[in-house]
Amino acid sequence: MKVKVEKYPAAAVKNGRLYFGGADTVALAKRFGTPLYLFDDATFRGACRAFRKAFESKYEDVMIVFACKANAMLSAMRLAAEEGLGLDVASAGELTGAILAGGDPEKIIFHGSYKKEEEIEMALLAGVGRIVLDSDFEADTVDRVAKRLGVKARVLLRVTPGIDAHVHEMVQVGKLDTKFGVPLKGGEALRLVGRIIKKKNIEFMGIHCHIGSQILDADPYRLAIQRMVSFIAELRDEYGVLIIDLDIGGGFPVRYDSKQALPTPEKFAAAVCPALLAELRAKGIPEPRLILEPGRSLAGPAGMTLYTVGPVKAIPGVRNYASVDGGLSDNPRPGLYGALYEAVIANRPEEKKGLKKFRVSGRHCETDTLIPDIELQDPRPGDVLAVFTTGAYNYSMSGNYNKFPRPATVLLSGGKPEIVVRRETHDDLYNCEIMPARLKNAKKKKK
Amino acid sequence: MKVKVEKYPAAAVKNGRLYFGGADTVALAKRFGTPLYLFDDATFRGACRAFRKAFESKYEDVMIVFACKANAMLSAMRLAAEEGLGLDVASAGELTGAILAGGDPEKIIFHGSYKKEEEIEMALLAGVGRIVLDSDFEADTVDRVAKRLGVKARVLLRVTPGIDAHVHEMVQVGKLDTKFGVPLKGGEALRLVGRIIKKKNIEFMGIHCHIGSQILDADPYRLAIQRMVSFIAELRDEYGVLIIDLDIGGGFPVRYDSKQALPTPEKFAAAVCPALLAELRAKGIPEPRLILEPGRSLAGPAGMTLYTVGPVKAIPGVRNYASVDGGLSDNPRPGLYGALYEAVIANRPEEKKGLKKFRVSGRHCETDTLIPDIELQDPRPGDVLAVFTTGAYNYSMSGNYNKFPRPATVLLSGGKPEIVVRRETHDDLYNCEIMPARLKNAKKKKK
Repeated sequence: MKVKVEKYPAAAVKNGRLYFGGADTVALAKRFGTPLYLFDDATFRGACRAFRKAFESKYEDVMIVFACKANAMLSAMRLAAEEGLGLDVASAGELTGAILAGGDPEKIIFHGSYKKEEEIEMALLAGVGRIVLDSDFEADTVDRVAKRLGVKARVLLRVTPGIDAHVHEMVQVGKLDTKFGVPLKGGEALRLVGRIIKKKNIEFMGIHCHIGSQILDADPYRLAIQRMVSFIAELRDEYGVLIIDLDIGGGFPVRYDSKQALPTPEKFAAAVCPALLAELRAKGIPEPRLILEPGRSLAGPAGMTLYTVGPVKAIPGVRNYASVDGGLSDNPRPGLYGALYEAVIANRPEEKKGLKKFRVSGRHCETDTLIPDIELQDPRPGDVLAVFTTGAYNYSMSGNYNKFPRPATVLLSGGKPEIVVRRETHDDLYNCEIMPARLKNAKKKKK
Repeated sequence: MKVKVEKYPAAAVKNGRLYFGGADTVALAKRFGTPLYLFDDATFRGACRAFRKAFESKYEDVMIVFACKANAMLSAMRLAAEEGLGLDVASAGELTGAILAGGDPEKIIFHGSYKKEEEIEMALLAGVGRIVLDSDFEADTVDRVAKRLGVKARVLLRVTPGIDAHVHEMVQVGKLDTKFGVPLKGGEALRLVGRIIKKKNIEFMGIHCHIGSQILDADPYRLAIQRMVSFIAELRDEYGVLIIDLDIGGGFPVRYDSKQALPTPEKFAAAVCPALLAELRAKGIPEPRLILEPGRSLAGPAGMTLYTVGPVKAIPGVRNYASVDGGLSDNPRPGLYGALYEAVIANRPEEKKGLKKFRVSGRHCETDTLIPDIELQDPRPGDVLAVFTTGAYNYSMSGNYNKFPRPATVLLSGGKPEIVVRRETHDDLYNCEIMPARLKNAKKKKK
């Protein structure tokens, strides 16, 4: 029942303490305060390299693109760019970051189910490599904006292959019933490509799909490949079009459970690449560039969150509660998706006695369950609780509920810590507020 | 099936457009951009007054306290203070706001299941009226900090009366199985009061409970009153202590559904006050001050969110999707709690033809369902969608997922709009980031 620390790539136990990215987590908590996000340079780079290697060794022309939404901090985008990855952005805000981080615009892919016109303009002016069209309506908008700017928009079309990858409802985006993309079913996507290729200010470069998140099995990808290649053949037969890019999105998993087997990027590459090559050969289609968009699987394992334990309560006959000094605002995933995380007491990760079941609660003024049920080593106020695999969708989904300042992020490089996101201050929290003079004056009057 | 606009206090249809707080919402959307939060001064003040009146007319000594977590913007706190309400805060960040907004410290109640030591210090230095102790551990901490500062901490003790108010799991906080407070059951709370009254630097002022959120029925309050008064009698009999304050928390509902009957504050007051007086009389206990902590029921109806409709998709045989230019980051409640909202097309709220079922999706790069199923008047790109009752737990729970800047808030006073929270900029989004020189230099080298 104990968490297997050794299963987490950046973690180790040394001198009776938890280390992450080569650094003593207890010392980090003391020096930088809690809650604290950690992000390990080597783990993130390693994941980028492993992903590239897995696919590049099995397919000629591959572009791996970091899905910035998983962790849209500049340093993460920069590291991904340094590792030769492209950047997948889903808003003008993420695009701004990708540019600030020095990402090569040519390798930026601009996503989103509803891009605002000013965002499309920004993407075209930045010269992003691809805009992924999500609808009929958007095809018209992009064509119009491109015409106005005197540029040619290079686009992919997002299609929904109708695959239900059995993941959480909120990330089931490849099935037919989704806001995203255009269905292959019923000839919708085929018809839209027919419209797109006639547009003067758009260059049709290929197709995209994304079948879900945290997919533990390669079969849905194989199925997606089949349907996408059939569609590619349809496009050729119907319009004489040969696509340049086949983008099969992301959805690759990370370890949230140290007892569960986790498929490697190699496993996915070994399932996807030969299947793709076989399908292409069978239909006589030249090899397109294969684009993949991992986000969580790159950033997740590089991250950890450190908290300080506060009050611990035993409710007789009911449950034990251990509270930590963060929660919903720094990690909304348990609340949003029922996401389960593992954690250990960083200052005595190996102590065997006193393992008891606890519910770990955040300190927001509502139920705020961070981990519903975990065995911990007799947590006590002042202990440091380390939660694994928080590098994806924690910082990027964070907020300020209860006016909690967002945590700092410390980047670890060979064990050396640097603050790459400073902790918010109370001033930051009210930075955008403007109290009307009328109300301010009323305040003075009362004094 | 149509939304009954007239059921929402600040809303009206005029000249074929939706008005809110006396202002034309379509004009507001055009002038200030979308997504946009609206907050109506008169509706908020009216709710504060109605709440005060309902309880003050039925009980001698009442303090109504605005639960700032519902909408922690300075202007809302200021308005509540002007209306004579106290402010309930749950963190140093909210306390900062309450002070900035000119809240009277004497009427500030400091809550939280895990207050950090520096927060307790800040609360004591600010001279807050009450600190609500949540645990044994916290009683010791408050006593120690008060001693160090040479002040006396006036405290309430939060107890859990063991009431299950049949609300969403995440806001069921009055039952026995909760991180909050100390159970009445088993004598836990009684024992802790025994400890508290012996502490030299703490003055025990009374007890607090909070039984849930969006409670549609007065019965759980009546039951809470019974148990709390029994406990007050126990405290008298056991320790000879007579409490000063009885705080029964919040949980009062707002209208999310125009077809549903909504109990008024009068109804709750009519149920709670006589029951309380009867219980007190029966046990021969002098009347304590009654404290109530409405948040949602004051701020919710004062708020509205305006969005611009983007791509609309009909997936044949499956569903219609209408997308809007906000979602999860400005309103996480549908994702977190399955919260249901009503909405109308603001630029033609009364058009009868073409009412069809739609799913309203936000534009974040995931499923992001804002309203799962609603009849709308043939939404088209460029329409303004107005969502009702977003004044509570929308702005305060907002974040920047997908690097979406947070919306502005416009305060409406007699129809006159003022920006009280400016829209975040892309600069704001990266305000806390510090890219290490090493990474910046790597970027230069590559050029």
